[in-house]
This record gives sequence, C-alpha cells and structure tokens, in this order.
Amino acid sequence: MSIPVLTQKLLAAKKAKGLSFADLEKVLARDEVWIAALFYGQATASEDEASKLASLLELEPDAIAELMSYPLKGLGPVVPVDPLLYRFYEILQVYGMPMKEVIQEKFGDGIMSAIDFTLDIEKIEDPKGDRVQVTMNGKFLPYKKW
Amino acid sequence: MSIPVLTQKLLAAKKAKGLSFADLEKVLARDEVWIAALFYGQATASEDEASKLASLLELEPDAIAELMSYPLKGLGPVVPVDPLLYRFYEILQVYGMPMKEVIQEKFGDGIMSAIDFTLDIEKIEDPKGDRVQVTMNGKFLPYKKW
Amino acid sequence: MSIPVLTQKLLAAKKAKGLSFADLEKVLARDEVWIAALFYGQATASEDEASKLASLLELEPDAIAELMSYPLKGLGPVVPVDPLLYRFYEILQVYGMPMKEVIQEKFGDGIMSAIDFTLDIEKIEDPKGDRVQVTMNGKFLPYKKW
Amino acid sequence: MSIPVLTQKLLAAKKAKGLSFADLEKVLARDEVWIAALFYGQATASEDEASKLASLLELEPDAIAELMSYPLKGLGPVVPVDPLLYRFYEILQVYGMPMKEVIQEKFGDGIMSAIDFTLDIEKIEDPKGDRVQVTMNGKFLPYKKW
Amino acid sequence: MSIPVLTQKLLAAKKAKGLSFADLEKVLARDEVWIAALFYGQATASEDEASKLASLLELEPDAIAELMSYPLKGLGPVVPVDPLLYRFYEILQVYGMPMKEVIQEKFGDGIMSAIDFTLDIEKIEDPKGDRVQVTMNGKFLPYKKW
Amino acid sequence: MSIPVLTQKLLAAKKAKGLSFADLEKVLARDEVWIAALFYGQATASEDEASKLASLLELEPDAIAELMSYPLKGLGPVVPVDPLLYRFYEILQVYGMPMKEVIQEKFGDGIMSAIDFTLDIEKIEDPKGDRVQVTMNGKFLPYKKW
Amino acid sequence: MSIPVLTQKLLAAKKAKGLSFADLEKVLARDEVWIAALFYGQATASEDEASKLASLLELEPDAIAELMSYPLKGLGPVVPVDPLLYRFYEILQVYGMPMKEVIQEKFGDGIMSAIDFTLDIEKIEDPKGDRVQVTMNGKFLPYKKW
Amino acid sequence: MSIPVLTQKLLAAKKAKGLSFADLEKVLARDEVWIAALFYGQATASEDEASKLASLLELEPDAIAELMSYPLKGLGPVVPVDPLLYRFYEILQVYGMPMKEVIQEKFGDGIMSAIDFTLDIEKIEDPKGDRVQVTMNGKFLPYKKW
Amino acid sequence: MSIPVLTQKLLAAKKAKGLSFADLEKVLARDEVWIAALFYGQATASEDEASKLASLLELEPDAIAELMSYPLKGLGPVVPVDPLLYRFYEILQVYGMPMKEVIQEKFGDGIMSAIDFTLDIEKIEDPKGDRVQVTMNGKFLPYKKW
Amino acid sequence: MSIPVLTQKLLAAKKAKGLSFADLEKVLARDEVWIAALFYGQATASEDEASKLASLLELEPDAIAELMSYPLKGLGPVVPVDPLLYRFYEILQVYGMPMKEVIQEKFGDGIMSAIDFTLDIEKIEDPKGDRVQVTMNGKFLPYKKW
Repeated sequence: MSIPVLTQKLLAAKKAKGLSFADLEKVLARDEVWIAALFYGQATASEDEASKLASLLELEPDAIAELMSYPLKGLGPVVPVDPLLYRFYEILQVYGMPMKEVIQEKFGDGIMSAIDFTLDIEKIEDPKGDRVQVTMNGKFLPYKKW
Repeated sequence: MSIPVLTQKLLAAKKAKGLSFADLEKVLARDEVWIAALFYGQATASEDEASKLASLLELEPDAIAELMSYPLKGLGPVVPVDPLLYRFYEILQVYGMPMKEVIQEKFGDGIMSAIDFTLDIEKIEDPKGDRVQVTMNGKFLPYKKW
Repeated sequence: MSIPVLTQKLLAAKKAKGLSFADLEKVLARDEVWIAALFYGQATASEDEASKLASLLELEPDAIAELMSYPLKGLGPVVPVDPLLYRFYEILQVYGMPMKEVIQEKFGDGIMSAIDFTLDIEKIEDPKGDRVQVTMNGKFLPYKKW
Repeated sequence: MSIPVLTQKLLAAKKAKGLSFADLEKVLARDEVWIAALFYGQATASEDEASKLASLLELEPDAIAELMSYPLKGLGPVVPVDPLLYRFYEILQVYGMPMKEVIQEKFGDGIMSAIDFTLDIEKIEDPKGDRVQVTMNGKFLPYKKW
Repeated sequence: MSIPVLTQKLLAAKKAKGLSFADLEKVLARDEVWIAALFYGQATASEDEASKLASLLELEPDAIAELMSYPLKGLGPVVPVDPLLYRFYEILQVYGMPMKEVIQEKFGDGIMSAIDFTLDIEKIEDPKGDRVQVTMNGKFLPYKKW
Repeated sequence: MSIPVLTQKLLAAKKAKGLSFADLEKVLARDEVWIAALFYGQATASEDEASKLASLLELEPDAIAELMSYPLKGLGPVVPVDPLLYRFYEILQVYGMPMKEVIQEKFGDGIMSAIDFTLDIEKIEDPKGDRVQVTMNGKFLPYKKW
Repeated sequence: MSIPVLTQKLLAAKKAKGLSFADLEKVLARDEVWIAALFYGQATASEDEASKLASLLELEPDAIAELMSYPLKGLGPVVPVDPLLYRFYEILQVYGMPMKEVIQEKFGDGIMSAIDFTLDIEKIEDPKGDRVQVTMNGKFLPYKKW
Repeated sequence: MSIPVLTQKLLAAKKAKGLSFADLEKVLARDEVWIAALFYGQATASEDEASKLASLLELEPDAIAELMSYPLKGLGPVVPVDPLLYRFYEILQVYGMPMKEVIQEKFGDGIMSAIDFTLDIEKIEDPKGDRVQVTMNGKFLPYKKW
Repeated sequence: MSIPVLTQKLLAAKKAKGLSFADLEKVLARDEVWIAALFYGQATASEDEASKLASLLELEPDAIAELMSYPLKGLGPVVPVDPLLYRFYEILQVYGMPMKEVIQEKFGDGIMSAIDFTLDIEKIEDPKGDRVQVTMNGKFLPYKKW
Repeated sequence: MSIPVLTQKLLAAKKAKGLSFADLEKVLARDEVWIAALFYGQATASEDEASKLASLLELEPDAIAELMSYPLKGLGPVVPVDPLLYRFYEILQVYGMPMKEVIQEKFGDGIMSAIDFTLDIEKIEDPKGDRVQVTMNGKFLPYKKW
C-alpha cells in the first residue's frame, strides 16, 4: 500500500506545524478521526473546510480542489498485515458472527450502515495499562422488501 | 462458511426456549456478545458457565466439555460477503489508516489488543432511524524494545 | 457453489406445482425477484409470507421457521464463472468507474444503498431479439461527516 | 487501480471548462454514462465523436487517435473495495442467483448481453431521500445448439 | 473439481453401452462436443433430446427433467491444472493479446460471442503425429453505443 | 497488464505506416496471428524476419536483437477481465471438460500441444451478423510410459 | 488435498502384500515412479497392465476399468505446503529462470515436454548423508511458426 | 516479474562478448546453471568468483559487491505462466505425490534438500527430437525427532 | 481446516485418561511438542513409539500403522486466522527480514533447516504476566555451489 | 517486495563503515535483531536512539525523523518465497497446531503476544554443522471475558 502524495504532504505539513489531529478538530469543528480520513483521501471536504485546512497548513492552491473531490476509497483488495490494522480484521474474524446474531436479534434483518456512520477513538487511562476505546455508530438499515 | 454442529444445537435450543442473548446475559452474568461468541466456538466457558448453560438449554452432557475446550477461532481465510459482516471489513478499508494515525498519535507505537478486549452492542433509538452502536475496548499494547 | 437444501426443496415444489415466480408474485404480493431471493436464502419472510408460501408449496412445517430466519447472505467469496452471473461482474468491471463518476456528479459523495433497494427484471420484446431490462433502485446515502 | 493518464486529462479539462457529463451528452448526442465510459478508456469513439470532444475540451491532437483506439477494458482482476463500486458486487452476491432464476424462467437458457447493452442512471427525487435508479438493458442471447 | 452425479451416471451408461460421442451425434443430430457439454451440465436439452438420450442410455425418469433444466455453468473459479485443460488457458496467456489485435483489426471494437457459438473437434491424421483441430465459431458482437 | 515498450513501438509504427497485420503477412510470409504474437513478445523472429520487419517499420537497430531474443511469455498470473479475452477463458470454463472427453475418446490419454501449434482467425461474413472463426491446430502428444 | 478412494485402496493392498514400488516395477515392467503415478490417478494403464496389477493386489473387478480411464490430473490449484512437495516448487522459484536461460541457450525457443517425459528417482549412497537424485527427461519442443 | 537491473546488465554484457554459459563454466569453474542462478540474483559469489566475472564481462566496480551480497531469492508469489517455466510446475502437480511415495519408500520420512543441492541440464541428441535432461541431486534430510 | 479423525481420537483418549503432553513426554521419552506433532499427523512414530502410545491410550490396532506412516504435512495453503496461530505469521511479517539479515551476517548465504530442527515451549513465570518462550533450533544449511 | 529507500541507505552506510549488527548492539544498547527491525522500518527509535544511529552512520538529518515515525509494518500480503523466510512459514504449517495444543495446555485460552515480545538469534557451534537458535519470548495474554 503506497501512501498518496497529498496524504504525505498533509502529514508533513501537520508535523512541521506541530499540530495534532485533536488541534485540527478545534479548528475545523470536525472529529479528529474524520479529519484523518480526509488526510487519507477517504472523505470529502466542503469548500470551507478545504480552505481552512489549506490556509492552516499552508498548502498549495491545488490541494483545495483535491480535498473537495470524491475519492476512490479503501486500502486496496488485501487483508492488511500491519499489526494495528490486522487486529480489526481479527475482531471481524472472531466476533463477526456473534455481532451478526446480536444485531439481528435486536433489530431484525438488515445491517449497520458504514456511510451514515461515525467513529470515535478515546484514550481511557487505566493504572493496569491504558485502553483504546473505539465507538462505532451507524444507522440501522432494514432490508427493504418489494 | 459452515456453521459448526454445536453452534446449530445451541441456537436451536435457545430458539426453542424462546430466549434472547439478553436473557442469557442475566443468567450467566456475561455480556450477550461474549455469549454469542461462546455459541460460535470463539470463546471458552468455565466449568460453571458451561454447566449453567447446559442445564438452561437442556444440552447433552458432551456439550459441557466442548464449551470448555480451546477453540480454533475465526471465520476462515476470506473476506466475508454477507452484507452485515462486510460492512466491518469496509470500515477497516476506509477508516483503517485514519484509526492508525489517531491511535498512534494518542498512544505511541503499538496496537489495541484484540485479546484483552471487550465488545458491546447497543441499540440507540432515534426517530430518524435507530442506530447500532458498537463499542470496542482493548488494552493498548506498546511495542517492547529489547 | 452448492445450492442449499431448502432452496432445492422450494424449487422442486414450485416446479411440481407448475408455478412460475410471476404466479407467486400474485399470491404473496411481493416482486418475483424478491421471492426468488427468498428461495435462495437471501431475504427473510414475515410469518404471514412464510405461511402462505408453505401452504401453497405444501412445505414441511420446519420450512416456515427457516424462511423467517436471518440468512447468511451472498454467493461466497468468488467471482462467479456462470456466464449469466459473470456478465453482471463484467458490467461492474467495464462500467463501474463511469457509474461512479455520473452518480457522484448527480448526488455528491456517497453510495447507492444495496439494502434500501429494489431490483426488477422485465422482458422487452423486440423483433431484432428480445431484451432483458434490469432496473435497480436504491436510496442515495450521502457520507455523514462528524 | 491507477487512473490512466488520458482519463485524468479528460476529467481535468472537463472540470476546467465547468462541464458536466450531462452537458457533454448534449454536444455528443451520446448518453452521459457512455461518455464517462469513453473517458475511462472503456469505449471507442468514432472520428467525429473524438474530434468534437477534442475541440470542446481543447485536447492535444494525440488524444483523438487514442479515443478511437480499441481499449483493453476492465478495472483489473479484483473485487473493488471502494464502497460505491462494491455495492454493485454485493448486488451480484445477494441477487445473482435470483436474477438467474427469473431471467431463465422468462427467456430460457442464455444470458443478458453486456455488449449489445445500454446503462442509464437517473436521479429520482424523493422527500425521504433521493434515489439512484440504474437501468440496464441488454439483448437476450440464447445458447446456440449445434 | 468434483464430477456431478448425473455426469457420472451418463458417462457410466454410455460406457456400458459401448457408445462413443460420435455415435450419440448420429442419434441426437447434435454435435459430439455439444453432447459432451450436455453430459457435463453445461447445456440444456429440449424435451425431445432428453427423452431420446434417456431411452438410449436407459436412464431413470428423473434424468429427463435434469437434462432440461438450466444449469449453473463453469468449472469453478480456478485455473485448471489438468494438463489437457491447462493448454487452453496457456493459449489464452500466449495468444490472447495477438488474437485481440487481429480480431479488432478485422471487425472493430467488440467480442466473439461465447453464447452464439459452436465448437468442433477433428482428428487430422498426420504421419508425423496426428493433430487435434479445434474450430471455434462465434458471432461477432460490436459494442453498442447509446 | 502493461504493454511492453517494444510492443507499443511496433504498434505505433504499424499504425503510422497504415499497415494491417494482413499486409505484414504478405511481406513476412508468416500468418497475421503469429506476427501479432511477435509484436507482443510471445514469439521469436529469425534474423531474416527481424530485419525485414525492422526495415519495413523503420525500427531502431536494437529492435532486431530484441525480436530475436527468447521472450518470457504470457499475460501474467490472472484471469483477464477484458471482455474479448475473457470469452476465451469462459469457453474453457464451459467447454473444457467436454473437449477433454471428446479429445481423449478420439486420441487416448494425452494433450493437444500448445507449442507445435497454429492458430488462425477468419472473418466469416453472414447477413445475420459476421462471425469470428478461430482454428486451433496442435499436435496430439500421447503420454509417454516408462 | 484428499487422497482418492482408489489410491487409498491400492496403497493399502500394496502394504498388506508387503510390496514396494520397486517390486511392482519388476512385475509390470514399468518404472516405479510411473506406477506410483498410476496409483495416484495421474497415468493410464493398458488392459494388460491393469489386469496384472489387479490380480497381484487382488483388487475388485471395477478397479481395472478405473485404472484404464483417462484421469483428471494434478494436485489441485494450490502451492503445496507439504515440505517434500514444496521443495520442488522452491526449486522452480530459485532455479526457474536460470534453467530457462540455459535450456534456451542450448536448444532455442521452446520447452521441455512434460508429456513425452520420464522421471526417475535414485538413492545415491553417501557417507556424508545419502542423496536423492531425480532425473527428468523430456523431449524438446521448438515453437512452431506459421 | 521484472528482471533486476544487474541481471539485465550481466545478460547484455555476456551477449555483447558473444559468450555462452558453457563458456563461463570454463572460466569460473562453476556449472553453467549455477552461473545463470548467479546472474538472476539467486546465488552468491565469492570475492574471487565475482572479480573474475566482473573482469571478464567488464562490469562496473559496484557489481562485485552486489554479486557477493545475500540475495532475496525466488520469482515471487505466483505460479509462472511462461510455458517453459510452467512445465516444471505441472511436473509437480502430476508427479508430486508419486515422487513423495517413492522417495519416502526409499529413504523414510524426510525431504530432498533444495539447499545442499545441484541441478544439471544436458542436451541428449535424438533423431526423433532432441531431449532435455535435468538432473537434480539433493541431500536427503531425515526429520529429526526430539 | 478440519481436524483429522486420528487426531480427534488421540486427543479424546488423552483427555479421557487425564494425561497432559508433559505426561506423555515421560512415557515416550520424546518432547511434548514432538508428541503433539505426532498427534496432528505432522511426524512419524517408530514401531516402538507407536506401540507404547497405542497401549497407553488404548487405541485400536489400526492406529499403530497410521502413526508409523509418512504423513502429508501442513495446515493447508492458507494464512491461519486463529489468533494464536496468526501471531507466528505476524512475527514472520514483522521480523522476517531482520532475521534474514542477522542470520546471514552470522552464517553466510543459507537457511535454518526446518527438518533437522527442534522446537521447545516453556512457561516462564513472571509476576507481571507469565511468558511463553519458544526455542527453535535448526541446523544451518549453507547453499551448495557446483 | 521492494526494499524501502531508508533501509537501503542504512544497509549501505553500515556496510561502508564495516559494522555488523552486533557492533551496533554495543553502541545502541539494543539487541541486534531489534536494530535490524529498525533498519527495515518495523520498529520505532527514540530520539536518542535515532540520533546515535544517525551520527554513527553519518545519515542525512531527515533520517532521524523517519526512524522515529510509526511505521506501517509487515512484508505485505504474501507467503514469502525466499527460502530462508519460507522456512518460518513452514514451521507454522507443520508445528502450528502442536504449538497451539501445548501452549493452551500450559496456559489456558489465549495467545503469545507478538508485541510484548522479544526475539534473539544465536549461533550454536557444532562439529556436525553449526545451528541457528531462535528464541521467541512473548507475554501470554489470556482471553478476557466480559
């Protein structure tokens, strides 16, 4: 998986400015995960969001249009081998069917949307070792009958 | 993907008794998702948990030992095509790199454990359409240097 | 790809009764494609739909519960080689990116839902050779920002 | 999947001119989806079509010959992970066998051509959320016996 | 690749009767390759063809309906390793692009149909070693523009 | 699949000269398909053939040696998605086993050589639509016993 | 990879009789490797060979016909993981291109036949550790031009 | 599979000097196949071997160090489609299990080493067509018990 | 991955007897990991070892011959998804190249044998959490030159 | 698998300085395997470690930041074909299930961490051939119940 050029530029500019995604969250009024998704070409900025980001990070003018375009999304057709990424695939392997059972028992036949969807990451401090908390929230979409 | 025989028996017995996973949660004092994982051979019961479940669902005696064995875990080496399961793979495709960036910014080099890990599913009622909330909570494991 | 046992029984009973999917459409008040999806374990019947179908096709009592369960959907993790099925994969190969361009130009960043979705098939008679018309209709889901 | 150079130039020129595919439809007297397919190297222009497009978008002279050549078609040997593209693969996974049943019941043994084929996309406005309507129309080709 | 049960029965009955495909060609007035395709569930018989074959090979009555059904075609999603089959894959690997060039030079943008298609096999006797001659004949289908 | 540089140069020179493969057939006294195979690096020219081609197409001197080298053959380890190429893979999927049955019935245990092999393409004019005729002719190689 | 039923029966009968492949070599006047290939359904016996083997191993009468049929050859579409088998794949990985260079330098453009081919295995005793010697001998097949 | 830069330089220099691998065998006192393996980055030269080769082929000084480094070996994770290479894969497919039977019968449980291993290629002249003889010789390694 | 029948019987008998692999280590005078490998059909017992095990576990007589046969080894051609197994694949992904560098720096061009090889597992008690220690010990095999 | 640019520079500088990983171990007070992992972008240096390494190897200033970044880890989604790397995959294939049995018998349901993990390589001199000893030491992580 190669990192797109715009992503590299955005990450380098953010690093040069000494900004965290949490800092950008305050400026853009968008969640840090959504902003990281925008950095990786997985989300689309409004003109206002693109301009703010471009001015904050002193990007070249072309970047604004690119941040507003509709990206081709996804990592590519592979199971990722990076250990941090892989754990999410493993969670699907181990807890996928249990999640399907519980979601369908609560909601009926349908899915959790990955489009009308938010994802938050929190650091839960814990003396036995800090914990990562990932909260996914997606609209339930029942299968339509016709 | 074929459903293991024990899983089929457990699901059938639960259905025959008219029990939900939430009902089993009260009896076993374990989360409904963990219990569904046990049904699918993805988790291991203690003797006490296995006995309670066996007596509640009137299982054959062999089932107790099987519920206490150490299962070979996972769906198998595939990207699942069931739409509910696939959405979790898509979340990894679209939000995997953004999650990596934000987790590492908050925690440093390491991963979220998928072993010292819990997963909860809640139904958030919403007039515009109910929402599925999945909360994953895993210990952060920093890479050891040596 | 093996055909599930229930599917085989449903198809055999339908054939024995000399019924077409169009005939079933009249009885169940559901589209013939949706009914064929139910036959293949890709959709879930209500109790009323399952009972009507079971009595029409003289199914064994177990079939009603199975028709009402939440199926594990999909053909399996493969590109189908049956020529009729493959043509739909080829359409995605050839017209996938053009569809993405046109849909996003008309709607913005998002997708056509495959859940809040209907699919109809019509025979268009034509002296130069009859034509198959497939109409897909899915709700546009814009990407949520957060 | 990398976007071919000619495709990038065509999309950039179209954007610079502020033209939509619907605008090009009027000039070329071809459907917007077919024109998007031409942009992506999935269709072949006549000399007249290529010249009109080249003059409208002020392309370099080489582009005319390239638009008239016979392209190597397809996205490549993968299941696409972009969510918009993937939904069409999912439709094949979930509704493939039902479509096969209904098409063969109506037409006999054969396929819907993906060559003698048209594809239209319409926006259906709906207060509960606009809908994408995709209409595929292909000649039925019965299997020849010999 | 497992051989379907009906195929096994047909091949066994043919062997028991001491018949070649060339013999069946005379009875059914269909080419031997088409008949072999019917044996392998890759083609569909008319009622008359199925009855003739069933009576000639003394098949059980169920076989007639099965020979008349619309089969799920193809070997499965694999590159075959049997050396005889593999050579046809190798021909595609080595001569695929040259064939594409020559066909398109002669016909324009389009394909050779594999549906409106016949395939004959002849033995060409040759003192230096007999030769297999395979003649494929398919309708040219030009890409439709719309 | 990327087109090799020499192939691109050969195709461009041929186009610039306004020559068809049929024209080259007359000059080189080799079949047009074999010449297209040479263009795609799938065959090896003699010094005489390479020189004639180089002088006809005004190639740079290096090209002669390259045309005479022993190429690494094949498209690459994939099932091609280009529709024209795919149809030959589909023919193998659908008619592979029937061809094996008929060839072995006529010849015994062995294969059709893809090396001592010729391939011709003819255009058969037909008022109902022209037809592509592909004739493959390969030496039968019986399995050696030892 | 599952071992075919006939293979299992042949191996069991050979073991019960206390015979080695070298013993069978004397009876059948065929090389032990070819006989092992016959056991694994990778070669075809003549009627005489099949009868001799059947009587020596006291096989059921059906076995004779099966030994004389034309098998579907190959292990299946996989890289084998058994360490003994894998080493042959590794030899292809490491020495494949060097073999191609040397064979083509000695013979020109073509291949070593795997059909007009023999394979012998010898044990070379050596005080530093015995050695396995595998001798492959295949007819060189030059590419035909046409 | 792309040919490494050093390999290309070595092959070009060898060609320019008009040397065969057999000629290099005399100079380096190593087998021609091993030398071809060195050319393809599959083997490691001693300082003496690298210097001799560099001076014979008039290589740039950097080449000596590269010829002495420990290469990352193998063609890559694919089944090769080049017909000459593929035949060795086919031999493994067809004769793999028979070789395993015969080797284990002669030697016990273990493998033929692909490291303590030599490979020779000889041209056997034959009026019915010359033959390629490949002799592999590897130390038998018995499985250690502990 | 399905567990072989003999493995299931061995594991069940061991469980019924209340024996650990460490207990079997004392009886067979082989390491517990080697014995577990024998259980899983990955190693070959001598007659003495097979008899001792059969009598200890009260196995049926057939088991002795099966324990002494030469197994087809390996899990199958997949990356395992069971989390315990996967971690060893991940170690190869993350530390594979570093191990190659260090081993080659210490030993030269060659490999660690996986045949002349032992593997031990120890439990290292630790108040911060017990640790698994896996010690692999394989003969270094230098690449032979010839 | 392509070697990253930074890795190439680090290896070249180390070679130019005539340093081994064991030499670097003394300077950095980190194990040689960990340092090799850092070279391959599989580990993250502290500022102090990065500076020491940069000054020792006379790296360009940019390298310090890169050595301190959080890398995307892993070789890529493939089974490696390099023989040294492959042996570790083979060990997983052959000894994976036995290791799972023994680890779970000693520790219960859980895994050996590949994050809280160390790996050492030692050369064990042996007159019958030196041996490679790889010691892996990872924290046991029991599955959490909730």
